[in-house]
Amino acid sequence: MEAIKTKAYGAKASLIDSLSRLSRMDIERKAPREDEVLIDILYCGVCHSDLHQVRNDWANTIYPCIPGHEIVGRVVEAGSRVTKFKAGDVVGVGCMVDSCGQCASCSGGDEQYCEGPVSWTATYNGYMKPDGSGYNTFGGYSTSVVVKESFVLRIPDKLDISKAAPILCAGVTTYSPLRHWNTQPGDKVAVVGIGGLGHMAIQLAKAMGAHVTAITHSEGKRAAAEALGADEVLIESDKKAMEAHQLAFKLILSTIPDKFDINPYVSLLQRDGALVVVGVLGPFKSPTNNMEVAFHRRSVAASIIGSIAETQEVLDFCAEHAIAPEVELIPMQDINKAFSRMLDNDVKFRFVIDMQTLKDEN
Amino acid sequence: MEAIKTKAYGAKASLIDSLSRLSRMDIERKAPREDEVLIDILYCGVCHSDLHQVRNDWANTIYPCIPGHEIVGRVVEAGSRVTKFKAGDVVGVGCMVDSCGQCASCSGGDEQYCEGPVSWTATYNGYMKPDGSGYNTFGGYSTSVVVKESFVLRIPDKLDISKAAPILCAGVTTYSPLRHWNTQPGDKVAVVGIGGLGHMAIQLAKAMGAHVTAITHSEGKRAAAEALGADEVLIESDKKAMEAHQLAFKLILSTIPDKFDINPYVSLLQRDGALVVVGVLGPFKSPTNNMEVAFHRRSVAASIIGSIAETQEVLDFCAEHAIAPEVELIPMQDINKAFSRMLDNDVKFRFVIDMQTLKDEN
Repeated sequence: MEAIKTKAYGAKASLIDSLSRLSRMDIERKAPREDEVLIDILYCGVCHSDLHQVRNDWANTIYPCIPGHEIVGRVVEAGSRVTKFKAGDVVGVGCMVDSCGQCASCSGGDEQYCEGPVSWTATYNGYMKPDGSGYNTFGGYSTSVVVKESFVLRIPDKLDISKAAPILCAGVTTYSPLRHWNTQPGDKVAVVGIGGLGHMAIQLAKAMGAHVTAITHSEGKRAAAEALGADEVLIESDKKAMEAHQLAFKLILSTIPDKFDINPYVSLLQRDGALVVVGVLGPFKSPTNNMEVAFHRRSVAASIIGSIAETQEVLDFCAEHAIAPEVELIPMQDINKAFSRMLDNDVKFRFVIDMQTLKDEN
Repeated sequence: MEAIKTKAYGAKASLIDSLSRLSRMDIERKAPREDEVLIDILYCGVCHSDLHQVRNDWANTIYPCIPGHEIVGRVVEAGSRVTKFKAGDVVGVGCMVDSCGQCASCSGGDEQYCEGPVSWTATYNGYMKPDGSGYNTFGGYSTSVVVKESFVLRIPDKLDISKAAPILCAGVTTYSPLRHWNTQPGDKVAVVGIGGLGHMAIQLAKAMGAHVTAITHSEGKRAAAEALGADEVLIESDKKAMEAHQLAFKLILSTIPDKFDINPYVSLLQRDGALVVVGVLGPFKSPTNNMEVAFHRRSVAASIIGSIAETQEVLDFCAEHAIAPEVELIPMQDINKAFSRMLDNDVKFRFVIDMQTLKDEN
């Protein structure tokens, strides 16, 4: 089979001067090898990371950059040795498309912590090497993608495929730490930041039986947080309420996507509690006050995305518990507007691109 | 019984202008109540906290301040309801002399994390309340002390009583996190800072079967660290060696007593590894780079001292494994000189005051 002509939207260079610069590109996907599947992309979620990456916020972007790692599509063709999928299956691709497969992390089923010579391969922007070297990969803001079957997920029938895409990143990124830090029924869990990740975290923690408190700086998010299942809503600027919640939580999951001061949250942890930060890939705003950490043997931890097994788990968990991301479907052509709205915090709670709009473009 | 006249050394006010200001004081101890024991102090260790406290580094010192929370002595008198001790027993007192006894932490045997209205009662400087209120307690730089039996430890016969005192703080402060973070034979453990705490941590971790790496900024500590049992010594300024130890350790215990940059140590942790900081009760030098934490699901945690049960455990563990603090015995009158030497990092590895020298003073 020949290379597959693919329409895409990407950034040709760093978006320093303007935010409205993702533009139409034409790329080719290589024909699937024997262990790969070719996927016709139906939907792709818009993650805050997409914005970080195209803006080169992590100083590792390889241009051109075609974002998108919340991909839902249909298998068009499966390589000869593919056993899990066949043409017509509805499938998903998350943040990773490969890993070394050899290291302790990969062997233990934690591909997202791959320690192979070049870490795991991101669905877009290729290898996550600090010096930006390695080959580039192109993500889901496109009409097709070719992925190794072991990095492809089954989308359960019960899920609405137009809404499922954000589970592949926002879902697993919050599901994984909730599981890793052993969330049990009755546990007091707080979710900081009620955006794409946070709105999944509230629903997932609630379905695990936790008592869930949403922490936000915006009174305007109270109703939405409650509708998502939050038992309590705590406004971060309300000093009295924050004070009243000192020592309250076993686990606090922060989904704030930009640098912030973690200290006010540390004080809310129970003895032996953990603050797990999933949104920040850089330094915090201020040094941690170790006094607050030490006096209750607290931990400040962090994690990234989740393993392939966990990604399948969270898809199945969402199907079982009737959890769905709240999404606003947009046409591909509105992506730059969507990025601006994300920056203005004007999204409830995830944009998902309807890829038919790109297929229909000339 | 009447109040007990007690000789002591303490600071009458903050030592801002000079470090040589601990001076002779005369105090009275109340006669022991029915659940208390009166202890004739034989030895008292000199902890870095003593220096922090008399200098008011934590802005909570109540003056006069009589430090000392590594106390070894002999029971002179036991209250009528005391069952564990009798006159003549060699006993120890560590960092705590009371706690609420009611909260979840106390009920669970973690008195050091007491959440009672005023936290646990420190052996000196009374309640650890941020506003400095509460009553004052006087520590072990004195000839006698009266303590509730439930906060008094048995000193095993096998221990050399002139060396045992530092186990009561330096020992348990490192033993507790080594146990809490589940140190197992073969685990790679690093100890940062080879001082009073660090030299105990190396010995304890080694006796637990860990592979122990000592991390120090001083080449001059290499031989001593090896003599204490370190399998490897890593010099912090040796960039190549530090680089070679990335992802190396399951647990890093930092005993550095002053603010420092944790980031170079975070990078040395394995996936799911923990950096546990026991020496700093304030902000770190710089913000944590969450990128390094997240990419291997690491944790930055901290703990303080240890429970009463753990303090007994570490005393027994040291007796069983023939572990002893390395101490330099000093007369009480040399305490100000000792503080200066601690600041100059000129101590191997703990000063212990021979309290006979105070008893002999007029």
